[in-house]
Amino acid sequence: MEEVSNKQIILKNYVSGFPKESDMELKINSIKLKVAENSNSVLVKNIYLSCDPYMRPRMTKTEGSYTESFTPGSPIVGFGVARVVDSAHPDFKEDDLVWGMTGWEEYSIITAPETLFKIHITDVPLSYYTGILGMPGITAYGGFYELCSPKKGETVYVSAASGAVGQLVGQFAKLCGCYVVGSAGSKEKVELLKNKFGFDDAFNYKEEQDLTAALKRYFPDGIDIYFENVGGKMLDAVLLNMRIHGRIAVCGLISQYNLEQNEGVHNLFCLISKRLRMQGFLAFDYYPLYQKFVDMVTSHIKEGKVTYVEDIAEGIESAPGALVGLFSGRNVGKQVVRVAPE
Amino acid sequence: MEEVSNKQIILKNYVSGFPKESDMELKINSIKLKVAENSNSVLVKNIYLSCDPYMRPRMTKTEGSYTESFTPGSPIVGFGVARVVDSAHPDFKEDDLVWGMTGWEEYSIITAPETLFKIHITDVPLSYYTGILGMPGITAYGGFYELCSPKKGETVYVSAASGAVGQLVGQFAKLCGCYVVGSAGSKEKVELLKNKFGFDDAFNYKEEQDLTAALKRYFPDGIDIYFENVGGKMLDAVLLNMRIHGRIAVCGLISQYNLEQNEGVHNLFCLISKRLRMQGFLAFDYYPLYQKFVDMVTSHIKEGKVTYVEDIAEGIESAPGALVGLFSGRNVGKQVVRVAPE
Repeated sequence: MEEVSNKQIILKNYVSGFPKESDMELKINSIKLKVAENSNSVLVKNIYLSCDPYMRPRMTKTEGSYTESFTPGSPIVGFGVARVVDSAHPDFKEDDLVWGMTGWEEYSIITAPETLFKIHITDVPLSYYTGILGMPGITAYGGFYELCSPKKGETVYVSAASGAVGQLVGQFAKLCGCYVVGSAGSKEKVELLKNKFGFDDAFNYKEEQDLTAALKRYFPDGIDIYFENVGGKMLDAVLLNMRIHGRIAVCGLISQYNLEQNEGVHNLFCLISKRLRMQGFLAFDYYPLYQKFVDMVTSHIKEGKVTYVEDIAEGIESAPGALVGLFSGRNVGKQVVRVAPE
Repeated sequence: MEEVSNKQIILKNYVSGFPKESDMELKINSIKLKVAENSNSVLVKNIYLSCDPYMRPRMTKTEGSYTESFTPGSPIVGFGVARVVDSAHPDFKEDDLVWGMTGWEEYSIITAPETLFKIHITDVPLSYYTGILGMPGITAYGGFYELCSPKKGETVYVSAASGAVGQLVGQFAKLCGCYVVGSAGSKEKVELLKNKFGFDDAFNYKEEQDLTAALKRYFPDGIDIYFENVGGKMLDAVLLNMRIHGRIAVCGLISQYNLEQNEGVHNLFCLISKRLRMQGFLAFDYYPLYQKFVDMVTSHIKEGKVTYVEDIAEGIESAPGALVGLFSGRNVGKQVVRVAPE
């Protein structure tokens, strides 16, 4: 039975504050390229690994989170694109392409392959299944179309707007005939928003002394829809700038993930005075819509109506740095790690 | 033309911190008991005045609130029950009973009488039109039935539960087959909740060191619906105890109204992890449902299925003390001021 070496990225210990590359380490293990015949498992070779902000809370020992903590001493777990090497599960066979939860390693045994999505459409970049055609895509789609109920002419604000989810929300908003403004953390990202993704306007939040005043400038008549990726002070500023009957889709709170104690949000009285709806969601709430979503978005991609920017790091050795970089905004677009050639 | 004296309760100056009786003063004015014939106005004799928490923000100079600030030097404005004395408006005639926005004075000229509701059902206490059949009633009805979408068997938590709105929400929850727990600020109120309003359980929040632990005790499997009247620390404790897909109707934030700076709410990450919907609303969003609501609730009152507790202060001189008492929880049930005999 063939046994090969298997590089893994191990979480050394639970993390507090900003994660560092040294919180993880590379370990070289070995693995047999066969699954046990009396199992339901699938063995995959990982091609792309996905770096996503929700992974930060998993690096801390938490209770009551929607995701379990990672296990120190074991590989990081996350979304990825992979090719089936061996399968004991009737739905999967050698060479099938899949996306879903996998390990940060070259080869992974997936013990619950029912959670994997099979990839049928392959005339798009395979890495897209970590982003626009994967979890971030269905997040943007469900959170914006289903939760925010956008109407033509409404105003939309997206924070972390050049990220894996934000860049899509902005483009969906334009497809709906909304006026959309995004914020990001560098001049380069702001240019991307305006020139690549077609946002009506964009600004660098790091250059704004007063976020409330900045939003007032970009939305003199207020915000109908806020797609929330960051939390904290930004949310307080947004609340003051929302319009009556506005909607806030709470997708992520990345500004809070590295803090010992969350910042307080002070302006919730706006929920009453403006009759706002603020609603949290998770991608998998919208998994039942996945096929509909993929059909829509792949046709938009092929017609050039939707584009997607990725930041691809090369080699599993680069994965810790790529993940850590998310929290200082080093990535431009969706952060992916290429582990093996397609 | 008959001219009579008209006692008024005047706001002396904008208020900061807890309001005091001395922030208001009694003034005796005079008024002619006729409206100008070329106007659309209605002159009413006030019978009951309503003391409601939302009046506190109106005592401060605020911008961006859903209500305008009161005018120092002028009478307080609020909901009341009144009898028409003279009318230049075709829809109103002498002796009509009405409820709606009026002044804190014996006689008021209503310049926009379209905002008044005519009272047709009079075999219930007239004071009920400041409470169960007025703004607090439609608030409880709209906020609970429409916004929270309650289902039989769900768990419901109501804060400020013996107040004008809370006591109704609890009874509506029982009518829906929910399990309902309320909190209030005294032993007497807790007894009312359990023995008069039929809450399944109730507790005195002032006796709890740890609100999160208290809620865990009353809701070991979590809260499906929270009817929010208080805000601040209570909201943070509730967020930790909500169940997946729970709903929070944000009706009021009375704990915050007297603070110079609102307390921060720290646990909004629960919105994501539990996919919560948190939504603010105002009574008048549900005014279109008023007739349906009144028909339902008056039949419940007559069948003894719904009850209502009022705290009636006698005489317009008692109004400042009654209003101020709301913010220390001195009232037991809906706070009303009787200004004149029915």
